[in-house]
Formats: sequence, structure tokens, C-alpha cells
Amino acid sequence: MTNPTAAMLVIGDEILSGRTRDSNMHFLAGELTRHGIDLAEVRVVSDDRAAIIAAVNALRSAYGQVFTSGGIGPTHDDITAEAVAAAFDTPISQRADAMALLAAHYERSGMPFNEARQRMARIPDGATLIDNPISTAPGFTIGNVHVMAGVPNIFQAMVASVLPTLTGGAPLLSQSLRVDRGEGEVAAPFGALAAEYPDLSMGSYPFVVNGAYGTNLVIRGTDAAQIDAAMMRLAAMFT
Amino acid sequence: MTNPTAAMLVIGDEILSGRTRDSNMHFLAGELTRHGIDLAEVRVVSDDRAAIIAAVNALRSAYGQVFTSGGIGPTHDDITAEAVAAAFDTPISQRADAMALLAAHYERSGMPFNEARQRMARIPDGATLIDNPISTAPGFTIGNVHVMAGVPNIFQAMVASVLPTLTGGAPLLSQSLRVDRGEGEVAAPFGALAAEYPDLSMGSYPFVVNGAYGTNLVIRGTDAAQIDAAMMRLAAMFT
Repeated sequence: MTNPTAAMLVIGDEILSGRTRDSNMHFLAGELTRHGIDLAEVRVVSDDRAAIIAAVNALRSAYGQVFTSGGIGPTHDDITAEAVAAAFDTPISQRADAMALLAAHYERSGMPFNEARQRMARIPDGATLIDNPISTAPGFTIGNVHVMAGVPNIFQAMVASVLPTLTGGAPLLSQSLRVDRGEGEVAAPFGALAAEYPDLSMGSYPFVVNGAYGTNLVIRGTDAAQIDAAMMRLAAMFT
Repeated sequence: MTNPTAAMLVIGDEILSGRTRDSNMHFLAGELTRHGIDLAEVRVVSDDRAAIIAAVNALRSAYGQVFTSGGIGPTHDDITAEAVAAAFDTPISQRADAMALLAAHYERSGMPFNEARQRMARIPDGATLIDNPISTAPGFTIGNVHVMAGVPNIFQAMVASVLPTLTGGAPLLSQSLRVDRGEGEVAAPFGALAAEYPDLSMGSYPFVVNGAYGTNLVIRGTDAAQIDAAMMRLAAMFT
């Protein structure tokens, strides 16, 4: 039996101009290999609607899964979501589920939920949201295409959410806890907890807001009761 | 006036499996940008004949120039040269010019010029050789496709040979000097010489043969007399 296949589409002028060195391809390649999925092709295209549509359609018909990175942020050149919707010939709008996530996030962080940020709630009809434990703005899965952020730590967190859903195992569940401490401070107790729960996957995603460090701690697994138990332990540690 | 366009094709299972992190894309992107050529698309495919042929043909018809990296070494999975020849529907054979270069190289280094190494002399009919100052085995240009090695320092040296031929300027000339000293030892005087000739481009490419360090020093430019003068100075330094 051959492994299932996948392709990746990296979107961004900054990669093609040499200003930024892509690291998501190497990360995804390693993750897919560990999961028994063959990464068969990667394409890098610029922030160009026609180029994105053509690449999405070529790759999604040729391979089992397609992972994209880049172009889902708040600025005018972030056109990936619209282009993917067009590739699927599907309407796209500011969806209520994504708007609610983002509104709560900006409320919590005291930053205005302005028009640009609301663009990040634009999700094609029928797509499933991909959790973003770092900066909330979700990715999405439509058909066999997983649309993710280009910022490496967000991309990595989204891959961690998507990948277990592809291996034919039980659905992956996750809970996250936001703590107002830096990653270096939570690493030891969090690591010790993770060692007690070998069946769960625990990840930490640091952030800085207004100069203060914080970390989102994420517990992923397939056993809801076990995740609940671990999350109660985690909350007791840091609150 | 818009800039001329280019695409890159990275060939290699080791990139797609995550075992090796590609660095050639970032390097080429920066070089092309500095030369006013727009890198519009990159594809990464595995060591698969059909995949290489399809990508070469798609990219060479869509963009002004195509740069490939990888798959031109001596092992059985180095199939890029054959695949590119097939993409151009052109015969390929061990060409006399490439054989002579390689035979002299292995004679000089005291290593057998065996069958595997002779595979590196396989060049499509009508292609122009691309100089390899590091390990001699040449790349080649056929049509608008430049076929280069995947090893980063060789790739970089080949790009340095090809790029000036694309900008519409005067043809680039080069001479090289092989010295039996490590790069760290020649760097200071070589750098001082380079500073005296701002119109010339000087590059150093270290190698190790039988445990001994050596460096190929290359002088590139458009003025033959100036290159001759600089090369005489260089030879006097190190012989």
C-alpha cells in the first residue's frame, strides 16, 4: 500500500523576492513524513489571485491533501481566502463563527476590532475553521485544502491541529489555556504534566502583548475526559 | 517596462521528505531580485522523471528563464539531465567537452574516472555547459532552462556564471586558479586583490581532496585584459 499524497502551496511575494526565507516547507515536510503522508510537490507563487487559483486547482485535483501557507492576514494583499473560495467556486463572507472568535480575542486584549482585522473572519461557505492558538485568526479547511497562516509559529500550530485529522484515527480534540507568563517560565511544569499524559499532545505558543509575555498552552488528544482532567491540573498550576 | 520573469524548479526527494532544508531557493530569489529579474514561481518535485518533465515544460513555456537545482550527480537517482532532454525532445549522451573536463579533473585529483562519474558528462545535444569551479561536473543551459547542481555552494557558483549572461550586458568571462590551501588561508590576500578590482567579481570555492584542503579562486568580469592582469597577480600570490 502506498502512502496518501499531499502537496503544499506557499503564497507570498516576500519569499519570491528573497526578503524572507521560507521555513514552513521544511517543517511541513518533516511532519508529513512522520505521519506517513508523502509530500509529492510544493509550489511557491506570489500574492496574485490568478496564480493562487490555478495552483490550488492543479494541486487539489492531483494530490490527496493540499496545505497552503500565507496570505490570510489583515492587509489588502492577503488574498488567499478569496482566491481559494474562487478556486472552489464558493461564496465567501465574514462568517459569524470566525467573527465571534476574533471579537472575543480583541475584546480580551483591549485592541480595536477594526475593519482590517474583521477581514480575517472572511471564510468560504462550508469550510471548517482551523484553530489558531497564537493569534486567534483562524485558518480553514475546504474540501481537501487546508488554508493556514504564513507566520511560522502559527503555521506550525495549525498543522498540529490539522494533521491528526488526516491519519484516519479518532477525531482530535483540543483545549487551550492562556497564561500571562512567558514560555520559559511555564516550560518545566508544563513539560512535567505532558510527561504524565503520554496519550495527549501538549504544545505551548508564546506571544507578546503590549510588551508583556504570555503563552497559550494547548492540550490535544482524542479522549475528552483525559483532556478535561489534564486541563484542570494545568489551570490549577497557573491560576 | 516590467522585469523579465523566471521560475525555479527544485528537484529532490530529500527536500520533500524534510531530511534536507533547501537553501537554493532563498539564494536564487535574492540574486534574481538584485539583477532585476522577477522570480514568479518555484516548484519542488521529487526525483521522478514524469514529474520533472511536466514541471520543466510548464515553467519554460510560462516564464522567461527557468533555473533547476538538483539531480545532476553520479548516482542512479540523478535523472534531471535525462528528464530535461526528454522535456526538450532532444538526444542526450556523454558529450566530449564534458568528458574532457571531468577526465582532466579526476586525473589531477588521482581519483578513478569511473562509470558513475562519467554519467555526469551526459549533456543534451545543443546545450551549453555551465562552469562548475568547485567539483568540475558541469551544469548546462538548454533553451531558457539552466540545469544546475543541488549542492548549495556549487549551485551558487553556477548561478554566478549564468546570471550575468541574462541581463543583456556584455558576456561574462571567467578564469579560475586552483590552490592547495584552505579558504581561510587565502581569504585575506584574495579579498585585498578583489578590492583593487571593483569591476571584477572574485569568488572562492573550497574543497577537500583526500583530507587536504584546497580552494578554487574564480575571477569573473567582462574585460578580458583586466581579468588577465588580476589573474597574474593572483597566480604570483599563491605559487
